[in-house]
Amino acid sequence: MDAKANGPTTNAGRVMHGPTNPMVTPLLTDLYQFTMAYAYWKAGKHTDRAVFDLYFRKNPFGGEFTVFAGLEECIKLIANFKLSQEEISFICESLPGSCEEGFVNYLRNIDCSDVEVYAISEGTVVFPKVPLLRVEGPVAVVQLLETPVLNLVNFASLVATNAARHRLVAGNSKMLLEFGLRRAQGPDGAISASKYCYIGGFDATSNVAAGRLFGIPLRGTHSHAFVSSFMSPDEILERSLRSSDGLSTCEDFVNLVQSWLSKIQWSNSLSGIFGETNQSELAAFMSYALAFPNNFLALVDTYDVMRSGVPNFCAVALALNDLGYKAVGIRLDSGDLAYLSGEARKIFHTIEKEFGLPGFGKTSITASNDLNEETLDALNKQGHEVDCYGIGTYLVTCYAQAALGCVFKLVEINNQPRIKLSEDVSKVSIPCKKRCYRLYGREGYSLVDILTGESEPCPKVGERILCRHPFNESKRAYVVPQCVEELLKCYWPGKSGKVREALPALKDIRDHCIKQLEQMRPDHIRRLNPTPYKVSVSAKLYDFIHFLWLNEAPVGELQ
Amino acid sequence: MDAKANGPTTNAGRVMHGPTNPMVTPLLTDLYQFTMAYAYWKAGKHTDRAVFDLYFRKNPFGGEFTVFAGLEECIKLIANFKLSQEEISFICESLPGSCEEGFVNYLRNIDCSDVEVYAISEGTVVFPKVPLLRVEGPVAVVQLLETPVLNLVNFASLVATNAARHRLVAGNSKMLLEFGLRRAQGPDGAISASKYCYIGGFDATSNVAAGRLFGIPLRGTHSHAFVSSFMSPDEILERSLRSSDGLSTCEDFVNLVQSWLSKIQWSNSLSGIFGETNQSELAAFMSYALAFPNNFLALVDTYDVMRSGVPNFCAVALALNDLGYKAVGIRLDSGDLAYLSGEARKIFHTIEKEFGLPGFGKTSITASNDLNEETLDALNKQGHEVDCYGIGTYLVTCYAQAALGCVFKLVEINNQPRIKLSEDVSKVSIPCKKRCYRLYGREGYSLVDILTGESEPCPKVGERILCRHPFNESKRAYVVPQCVEELLKCYWPGKSGKVREALPALKDIRDHCIKQLEQMRPDHIRRLNPTPYKVSVSAKLYDFIHFLWLNEAPVGELQ
Repeated sequence: MDAKANGPTTNAGRVMHGPTNPMVTPLLTDLYQFTMAYAYWKAGKHTDRAVFDLYFRKNPFGGEFTVFAGLEECIKLIANFKLSQEEISFICESLPGSCEEGFVNYLRNIDCSDVEVYAISEGTVVFPKVPLLRVEGPVAVVQLLETPVLNLVNFASLVATNAARHRLVAGNSKMLLEFGLRRAQGPDGAISASKYCYIGGFDATSNVAAGRLFGIPLRGTHSHAFVSSFMSPDEILERSLRSSDGLSTCEDFVNLVQSWLSKIQWSNSLSGIFGETNQSELAAFMSYALAFPNNFLALVDTYDVMRSGVPNFCAVALALNDLGYKAVGIRLDSGDLAYLSGEARKIFHTIEKEFGLPGFGKTSITASNDLNEETLDALNKQGHEVDCYGIGTYLVTCYAQAALGCVFKLVEINNQPRIKLSEDVSKVSIPCKKRCYRLYGREGYSLVDILTGESEPCPKVGERILCRHPFNESKRAYVVPQCVEELLKCYWPGKSGKVREALPALKDIRDHCIKQLEQMRPDHIRRLNPTPYKVSVSAKLYDFIHFLWLNEAPVGELQ
Repeated sequence: MDAKANGPTTNAGRVMHGPTNPMVTPLLTDLYQFTMAYAYWKAGKHTDRAVFDLYFRKNPFGGEFTVFAGLEECIKLIANFKLSQEEISFICESLPGSCEEGFVNYLRNIDCSDVEVYAISEGTVVFPKVPLLRVEGPVAVVQLLETPVLNLVNFASLVATNAARHRLVAGNSKMLLEFGLRRAQGPDGAISASKYCYIGGFDATSNVAAGRLFGIPLRGTHSHAFVSSFMSPDEILERSLRSSDGLSTCEDFVNLVQSWLSKIQWSNSLSGIFGETNQSELAAFMSYALAFPNNFLALVDTYDVMRSGVPNFCAVALALNDLGYKAVGIRLDSGDLAYLSGEARKIFHTIEKEFGLPGFGKTSITASNDLNEETLDALNKQGHEVDCYGIGTYLVTCYAQAALGCVFKLVEINNQPRIKLSEDVSKVSIPCKKRCYRLYGREGYSLVDILTGESEPCPKVGERILCRHPFNESKRAYVVPQCVEELLKCYWPGKSGKVREALPALKDIRDHCIKQLEQMRPDHIRRLNPTPYKVSVSAKLYDFIHFLWLNEAPVGELQ
């Protein structure tokens, strides 16, 4: 099921594989894209040269930034965009009414060789109204692309943003694991969440398929069921464990653990803290340690964290230590994580001192119970001893806001600018084929994004430029950029002969995203009352928008 | 990309194809399922016979029912569950520490031939705590199934339930279209939403891929971009239209429409309502009608619904009528849908009368602007003239609650019942391999579900049976069922030799779901303050749960 199994097509001498999910085909679109294609074709308009912008109108999660993701999958779709004969037959059956043979021939020859795609680099921090993709080509073909491209960008950007927000609140020192597979919205809701959470700053995933497809580091140990599947240590038949250096063998690891357990239960500093521990849990921990002596990480809350899980873990860890192994840590999956992590940390420190295990106090504590941005924030405020978070449901389903509203709007056709009006100003589109720039200030932070007409000169470093709000006459400011970055780059040149921007490796996209967030002024990305980042238009584009607006708006009476 | 391209495997002489999404493989699981498999294998416990229940704890969307879906995909996964050599190599590289050759051999031979799956029929209305699937088999294999099976059931059931809730509030007379592809959580978030919304009672989808994969009816006409891509009727070069009966040809359809437009603008009853209409919109409507004279449905809100969209639509519809065609209707995608649908309906009635078009007053009105349960309910309360709803974002992403919390819990191992305790009573699992029955009362409504031990006798029609709340001693009632339905059926017999329940066609699952909802007492499924449906256990199972509970609970001091 490797994506590489898809037939590659060539463009400009390069080979590009299809989208990760083989279900992403030209049929992954709305029927109306095909009915429109037919109507365009009937009207002889199908090759009209159209420019569409893909953008969103509002940042998700009550924040003021978004991480753009999904570009690579879009380009892979576009590179392989070709209808099979079987698909064409299905389309023709699905159109209301009969469809002419000429149209069937037309469908047979459709591809994206005449389409140009400009896009912002994947992993870039982006803002409302700025085109993330600008797609230019024959109107019928570009419309067919609308739905799959929106599908591939919307969730990708949403979940990458969600991951970045979790990273910001957790801080850079914590390990973040994505554990969402079982609760995600379907198989590739999960697989794409793993991919885009990694881009947004997560360190690893539990999802084996995603690990294999994208090379994302994998993490995972054992579940509650593993613990309850054991009845008692008597079940463990193979009890020998070779020491880490391979020089000796402990013939009865079970016995070694049990002797440690009674030592810690009766030690001076721990006496009274530990009670009688659960034997099925102890058996499970011993078995897991026998299987993975170098990677012993135990889920300690199946019965009772402080009375059973932590002492059982410590006994096994001490026995492993005798054989030269270092236990990795514990995982808490229920209860008061701030309190329990603090109590567990105290025990680890006590054991470090009492039994002379250097570093045992720093044993890793992972927390993983229905975590989200709010609970991470609350943990920070309470104080805690968690080193690593496993985050699932809220992260991968974007529970706080399950959809991003990217749209795909016609901005020009046959060199005629088009505007979509609406009674709601936030829904008015910005017409024209545009260029987009990010202007940076003296401190290295980005100041403002500015959209200009395609033929306008590029803003220049050190030169004053007027940045206007696209729809609000009174909002404007002069900016003198210290650095100017052109945001839209050519990722699919079609047959234009332009150089195609390479698709970076996943790790590089992740690094880019992390660096981008560092370049944002902190008040734009903070959780509480973030400052909106400004997106502006040039004076010339402003005037043109309002000229078109007046021309298109219906003249009627006030009601 | 047809699912049928997957290699079929046989079971009991039958052939079964793989899951719809080829990315659903045994690797679509959490890494810890493989680390546990290794630990089980090292401990010689991997073939221990385990029974797991898949269930949820709380109905979604603040309701008191859930539609169970996703079973077919689970069974297809199970039927084809086999690791490739390449997958095995990847797993072994991913395990922390080296993995023994014996385990590699074990992985090579893993399949589900020794697994038995009992499940509730797909499309059944289900309730918290009742096992939707009961999976029995070698503990290591069943654990590998945990994650993909949860993934396949969680979203499927959530979105089917969401669709059913939309159907309940819309009423049976309305047409419901799923339009969510562009906003869904990734490609198969969309494709599976289309499938499961259909099961939950939707009539059609816009998603061409889903239409092709599952045979779901497809719907769609045109977008705002189609309208704005036209400049004026002058663009239309091919203007002739053959009449519906094929006997005559209108040489200038554009002219015919324009003459109708001035007639209605100056008609006695409509004068003053219609102003000057937008010419690019008019051109788009004429082009669409020329392409699909039998299926003319126009999006009327690109410029102004009442001043431009509706009069343009009526003019085209009247021209089509001259040629023997009947226009289908309009779509509203913004504004006050209750008001606009009412105003449009009035115009349609006026035109029916004024120009003698029988039935024109009933022209279909579709609404499609960010609809959800609440907006449908609000429309009902305000009164409206909408015949058909196109619903996207809120439906397919389950925006109101983006995840269902199905869990998969060990209830028995080697014939030893297991219970998972928790300080939160709602999280305590019901132990034992169980049978589940639905008891029906005199009026044909279902009264209560009851879980019993596997060897207990089946409840009998007309015989009094004590139904107890599993955890609350005081909640119990005698029930005399008029009909008893066993809920769990054998969908995967493994090598047990039992008869395998056939997987029904999608349409039959949908019919089953609709019938199921009709059999529910209305107060259980109403939107406002629904009555919880009762799920009980037999007296014997109740006693056993509490015996185990006392045995397992840690004995400690109150803090």
